[in-house]
Amino acid sequence: MAKSWANPGIDLHVEPAGRGLRRGLTDALREAVRTGRLAPGTRLPPSRALAADLGIARNTVAGAYADLVAEGWLTARQGSGTRVADRPVTAPPARAPRPRPFARPAYDLRPGTPDLASFPRAEWLKAARRALAAAPNDALGYGDPRGRPELRTALAEYLARARGVRADPARVLVCAGFAHALTLLAAVLRARGVHTVAVESYGLHVHRDLLTAAGLRTVPLPFDDRGTDPAPPDGAGAVLLTPAHQFPMGAPLRPDRRAAVVDWARRTGGLVLEDDYDGEFRYDRRPVGALQGLDPDRVVHLGTASKSLAPGLRLAWAVVPPWLAEEVTAAKGAVDTCGVLDQLTLAEFLASGAYDRHVRAARLRYRRRRDALVAAVAARAPEVRVTGIAAGLHAVLRLPSGTERPVVRAAAWHGLALHGLSLFRHPRAETEPLDAVVVGYGTPPDHAWAGALDALCRALP
Amino acid sequence: MAKSWANPGIDLHVEPAGRGLRRGLTDALREAVRTGRLAPGTRLPPSRALAADLGIARNTVAGAYADLVAEGWLTARQGSGTRVADRPVTAPPARAPRPRPFARPAYDLRPGTPDLASFPRAEWLKAARRALAAAPNDALGYGDPRGRPELRTALAEYLARARGVRADPARVLVCAGFAHALTLLAAVLRARGVHTVAVESYGLHVHRDLLTAAGLRTVPLPFDDRGTDPAPPDGAGAVLLTPAHQFPMGAPLRPDRRAAVVDWARRTGGLVLEDDYDGEFRYDRRPVGALQGLDPDRVVHLGTASKSLAPGLRLAWAVVPPWLAEEVTAAKGAVDTCGVLDQLTLAEFLASGAYDRHVRAARLRYRRRRDALVAAVAARAPEVRVTGIAAGLHAVLRLPSGTERPVVRAAAWHGLALHGLSLFRHPRAETEPLDAVVVGYGTPPDHAWAGALDALCRALP
Repeated sequence: MAKSWANPGIDLHVEPAGRGLRRGLTDALREAVRTGRLAPGTRLPPSRALAADLGIARNTVAGAYADLVAEGWLTARQGSGTRVADRPVTAPPARAPRPRPFARPAYDLRPGTPDLASFPRAEWLKAARRALAAAPNDALGYGDPRGRPELRTALAEYLARARGVRADPARVLVCAGFAHALTLLAAVLRARGVHTVAVESYGLHVHRDLLTAAGLRTVPLPFDDRGTDPAPPDGAGAVLLTPAHQFPMGAPLRPDRRAAVVDWARRTGGLVLEDDYDGEFRYDRRPVGALQGLDPDRVVHLGTASKSLAPGLRLAWAVVPPWLAEEVTAAKGAVDTCGVLDQLTLAEFLASGAYDRHVRAARLRYRRRRDALVAAVAARAPEVRVTGIAAGLHAVLRLPSGTERPVVRAAAWHGLALHGLSLFRHPRAETEPLDAVVVGYGTPPDHAWAGALDALCRALP
Repeated sequence: MAKSWANPGIDLHVEPAGRGLRRGLTDALREAVRTGRLAPGTRLPPSRALAADLGIARNTVAGAYADLVAEGWLTARQGSGTRVADRPVTAPPARAPRPRPFARPAYDLRPGTPDLASFPRAEWLKAARRALAAAPNDALGYGDPRGRPELRTALAEYLARARGVRADPARVLVCAGFAHALTLLAAVLRARGVHTVAVESYGLHVHRDLLTAAGLRTVPLPFDDRGTDPAPPDGAGAVLLTPAHQFPMGAPLRPDRRAAVVDWARRTGGLVLEDDYDGEFRYDRRPVGALQGLDPDRVVHLGTASKSLAPGLRLAWAVVPPWLAEEVTAAKGAVDTCGVLDQLTLAEFLASGAYDRHVRAARLRYRRRRDALVAAVAARAPEVRVTGIAAGLHAVLRLPSGTERPVVRAAAWHGLALHGLSLFRHPRAETEPLDAVVVGYGTPPDHAWAGALDALCRALP
């Protein structure tokens, strides 16, 4: 029963969030009973199963069931579970169902967030226990602004092994997310007299906005059918790139262009900011090593636990060239701003191999989803070409000309949050606009994946 | 044996920190054997006991013992434990003892850090387990920049109950430490056209520096024998105060002056920043409620877990007036910068009563230390007057005129880190300088407290 509950036909279309969760769930269930979507006598899944399925606390579900039993919509009998009442009573006026308790869409395929339901909660707690048992008391004080030495050491080892980064723990800076690291680097660049940073024609506007807020102008790099041409224009002091897996287009930076951008940095004294946001997730090709390995003196390597574990950890890292390390550290402040317990836990997670195991398992899960996406689109929307699928947690679906906006609108109509490619285009990009949608297949929890994929296919031309 | 080991006579004078911990401990032990401070045949404490005493991992101690057994300085026999070898061999050249492996002082009575050894590790892990089990998947994503709703709700409830703060969870902002909160407020004040912030004549220079870095000028408020006179001068747009327990002088702001500063804020549209850094710790007097309770529209209440739990959590909070909440939130950024796991754990810690229990126990421990400090100074340095002792984790020891610098120097000579009062004085303060030292009796771990107090009394006139 719990299983069929999770399939799209009977899905509650509830994405619980924030406060009022119990009330929202109660309203959604009441509405399903009232409208007959849940027929009299239908047995509801055990509260534990529905809680797991929705990724919420069991008490919340049990509370919602209890409210509805009290209101007469459901019945609960020892041994027969919770069922929809035979003859729904009229809702008491005090708790009349409100229209659309959740404004959020039922499904979410926007890129940027991994599947949060697969965060390894039990493994993380075990690592936290080991880390806290091993931590000296000193670790709990005001810390080195660069971050805990345990984590910097573990990251240096991991990044060297997994990403080919040439890292010394002394030059690893732990940050509260990629945006924090980029903000620090932007402030340092500005203070050094840099005015212009080259960025990719396609990228995250929130990153461009951070650079702008720091007083830097962003100029778009050319983008052609071989990807980004990363040679920054005259006057640019730095370039922000996603070399391992262009975001969102999905291709790795070509070897000749990797060499060219490092040449540019050496020749001009410029700085390359390497956003390695999902370097762990690759499927059909050999890993693309970090650009930083080509020249640790001219490339800042930036990574994050937001895609491999969860954004809520607020842990990212920058590997900074020796000549820049002191300034970037000073920009972070006099003491560390990241909580030490999660830092120690991530260090233990990395050192114990739990991180590698988690990434391997996640890679398999995401690959299955990617394969399902490719197969579904091929079967149901043959005019659409799925690109950028060799790595990462998202794909770009190329659409017939002029159809991007209608597809995004149709998706919304099917309860699906979806981003068009134009959202990621630099406002001054000169490359020909493409019609496409960016599908973050990592985002939905397992119970919503089939429904999300179905809604997507319905929206495609 | 473990107990006598911890007394000042046999204390290793090792304050382990950072990397090279095992080597540092090995060197210190080797030196103690070589110089005869640890006589041949002396039985060393079990590694578990020494590890607990020093607040480091047991493996580190076991490793240091093993190194020294290998080098011949110690012997280990089943059933008789680890002992100093009868005839110390000459140190092998490869591992010759290096001079002073730790430059840090043996004892630390600088204020600002609580006893980190009493951080409730086991209770915290239990709360983390409960919090993570109850958390919806959504909590692990990019969060509301104000912080997790669970924590803001728990803080609002706690601050109302324990500190008389009038708080609505929607206006509670979770920050990565007090300095982070002050930085955000300074940026907002500056953006609103404020140029000058009044501060206390005595306070933390790091706070003054943060305001200065944000482009604000600080002007010192008068300080007299009734404490701070908090009426800011013309032109000041805000005032930063420690009303419950002036830092570092120790007195609460007098009731007439509490009213006066709120009057000033209402009259001029100014803002009061209430730094409630250790409001939980009071001993001989009724609690002093938060100033914010007088006027939540003109006072920002600022609190922190750094004194009540540990600075390493990097969790603090601001309760912001409604008219300012949006701007301060926007200054924090588009997404939360604090890790959600510690936020959820602190929420659970507060809601379950574990926080109250921990604070009660800590209060008793600190009160005993304070009483020991008062008694020791009365007995051994009768010319010194201990003030500011009704609350908090530090006291101000008033010294005979002209003796502050010699006392701080003498303390250093006795291996004691100690701050003179002049370090906290605003460079433009007009109040008569006082000779005093600020003693943070919360700082040392239990095993070092007796030694620290003894070193302090030796340094006093």
